Amino acid sequence: MAAAVPKSIEWIGDVDGFVRLIDQTELPNRLVYKDCKNVEEVWEAIKMLRVRGAPAIGITAAMGVVVGLRDVLDQSPAEFSATLTKVDAYLRTSRPTAVNLFWALDRVKKAVEPHLGKKPPRELAQLIRREALAIREEDASMCRAIGKHGAALIKPGEGVLTHCNTGGLATAEYGTALSILLTAADEGKKIHVFADETRPLLQGARLTMWELLQHGVPATLICDNMAAQVMKEGRIQRVFVGADRITANGDAANKIGTYGVAVLAKHHKIPFYVAAPSSTFDLSLATGAGIPIEQRDPREVTEGMGKRTAPEGVAVYNPAFDVTPAELIAGIVTEKGVIAPVTEAIVRRMVGTN
Amino acid sequence: MAAAVPKSIEWIGDVDGFVRLIDQTELPNRLVYKDCKNVEEVWEAIKMLRVRGAPAIGITAAMGVVVGLRDVLDQSPAEFSATLTKVDAYLRTSRPTAVNLFWALDRVKKAVEPHLGKKPPRELAQLIRREALAIREEDASMCRAIGKHGAALIKPGEGVLTHCNTGGLATAEYGTALSILLTAADEGKKIHVFADETRPLLQGARLTMWELLQHGVPATLICDNMAAQVMKEGRIQRVFVGADRITANGDAANKIGTYGVAVLAKHHKIPFYVAAPSSTFDLSLATGAGIPIEQRDPREVTEGMGKRTAPEGVAVYNPAFDVTPAELIAGIVTEKGVIAPVTEAIVRRMVGTN
Repeated sequence: MAAAVPKSIEWIGDVDGFVRLIDQTELPNRLVYKDCKNVEEVWEAIKMLRVRGAPAIGITAAMGVVVGLRDVLDQSPAEFSATLTKVDAYLRTSRPTAVNLFWALDRVKKAVEPHLGKKPPRELAQLIRREALAIREEDASMCRAIGKHGAALIKPGEGVLTHCNTGGLATAEYGTALSILLTAADEGKKIHVFADETRPLLQGARLTMWELLQHGVPATLICDNMAAQVMKEGRIQRVFVGADRITANGDAANKIGTYGVAVLAKHHKIPFYVAAPSSTFDLSLATGAGIPIEQRDPREVTEGMGKRTAPEGVAVYNPAFDVTPAELIAGIVTEKGVIAPVTEAIVRRMVGTN
Repeated sequence: MAAAVPKSIEWIGDVDGFVRLIDQTELPNRLVYKDCKNVEEVWEAIKMLRVRGAPAIGITAAMGVVVGLRDVLDQSPAEFSATLTKVDAYLRTSRPTAVNLFWALDRVKKAVEPHLGKKPPRELAQLIRREALAIREEDASMCRAIGKHGAALIKPGEGVLTHCNTGGLATAEYGTALSILLTAADEGKKIHVFADETRPLLQGARLTMWELLQHGVPATLICDNMAAQVMKEGRIQRVFVGADRITANGDAANKIGTYGVAVLAKHHKIPFYVAAPSSTFDLSLATGAGIPIEQRDPREVTEGMGKRTAPEGVAVYNPAFDVTPAELIAGIVTEKGVIAPVTEAIVRRMVGTN
């Protein structure tokens, strides 16, 4: 059934083709594709969060370079080089805080630079297109590998809780924590997913539930404050969440609310897993205490849902994420395998060679 | 500063006066009073949740009887009696699931019945008015007593977390759990309140934050899923919540999310208190396992905030409340004093004579 699932990012056509994105700002109410046929449209899609999620942004930007070269495929090598430089610089301004954006653009640049002036423009663009598609493919493979390693942890018929969105919308396909659930379902394990709505921005309600619906995986939406009750009722056997950053000892920063779910899971003796590619590890940080907690706009909490939900003038605390200490994590699922138990020695052994 | 705080329910004038309510459906955006000058307006205010909270509904209904008798104050005793019967029956249909509505109307009836046909109508109505005001005063005294007993538990400068709305809007004034926080603030203890927004209906964001603002108590709004992080940061020294029903062993049913907060408090070694009048205890139930969990409309979760936040067709689990086991409760604050530790013996000793 996965074949019928809409793809978050696709390259349509040959070197003079375009990028087709799912416009995530229209979800969950409508499935709308955004075809980006010039670089300004790619820039706008990244800027306006039509595409979001670190890997997805990287893939889109890499494909955006090819779109930006459409008009110079048959021009002079000098003109091609000048346009390449301009397009690259322009795309970097679309979302300057997205590390993956820079990583993907650097990679594309590195792939083409040795050949500049040596091959005709059309071939150079083809080279960039292949690199962009490779980035997409590698991300898809990594998601599938995480899915496979994680699904092996799940027993048939289990109830699984997840938080925020870690699915195909944020990646090439399948995602990280969600990939595990989709893979388990693909393997016929007949799981039931509970998804936290994930206040304040409701990624769980809007995006995760939409993805689960597309894949036909049985799922139930709950408010964040219902997770404890669902656990108490014995409906959850395992928890899987994503991560933004993991330190050398295995502490994991992730969307706000994750730490609370980990504490609740511990109380109910439910194994709590983190899923993330090995690139998420930051071994330069010893523990999660070194990660500063970013504060976000209070209006996400008071006005984020279409109407004002709190009095004018109230103080709001709105941390973007929290840090779950390694001792609450049963295992960290990476594309290389599962880190369990979560200790610095095993973290370094598994992902220390990145 | 409490003197300047708007009153949730007031009787204005003498026996031919009217009920003035804060229209809670307009909060938190506007403070609008609803003057109910005929019994249909009282009925509508209860029906449409302009007034909510068990004690507040009871007080309003009792006052509503007086409003319903305005036109027969100078009529024959027979006409007065007939109208009284009609008004009483009519008000009972405004919110048939509200136990306090029936309790208050029964009490008013019992107060007037021995005098029917013996005193002139105007005097009978005056008697009902005094009974209604007495119900309001007794509720206010009870709230103040809970406030005093609970505030004694709080040390100066502490951070206190609360969930849902348990304030003056739901009662005559001050409320139950919120009364404790307001009283501590009145006593100059310089507390800081953190209020869970309380999904799905956001009573914490809409009502508790509004009340704290009115009373000038320093307070910060958080999403439910941020409570764990705020506790981890050492900002919370105590938790106070209300209760809908408490069983003989001290298990407490309350708004969904309460149980999760209790688990998080235990993990962070933060004392967790329940505040409720002794009338909340149901000693006929041995434990909370006997309390059925009511399911509410899924649309509260998917459409409750002014726009649709999840895809059409998703399954939703929306329990109205959860049950916190006695072993997670450091104490139950009643108008008679604090039950601590929470054991059946102490529960029965404190409130067994209700």
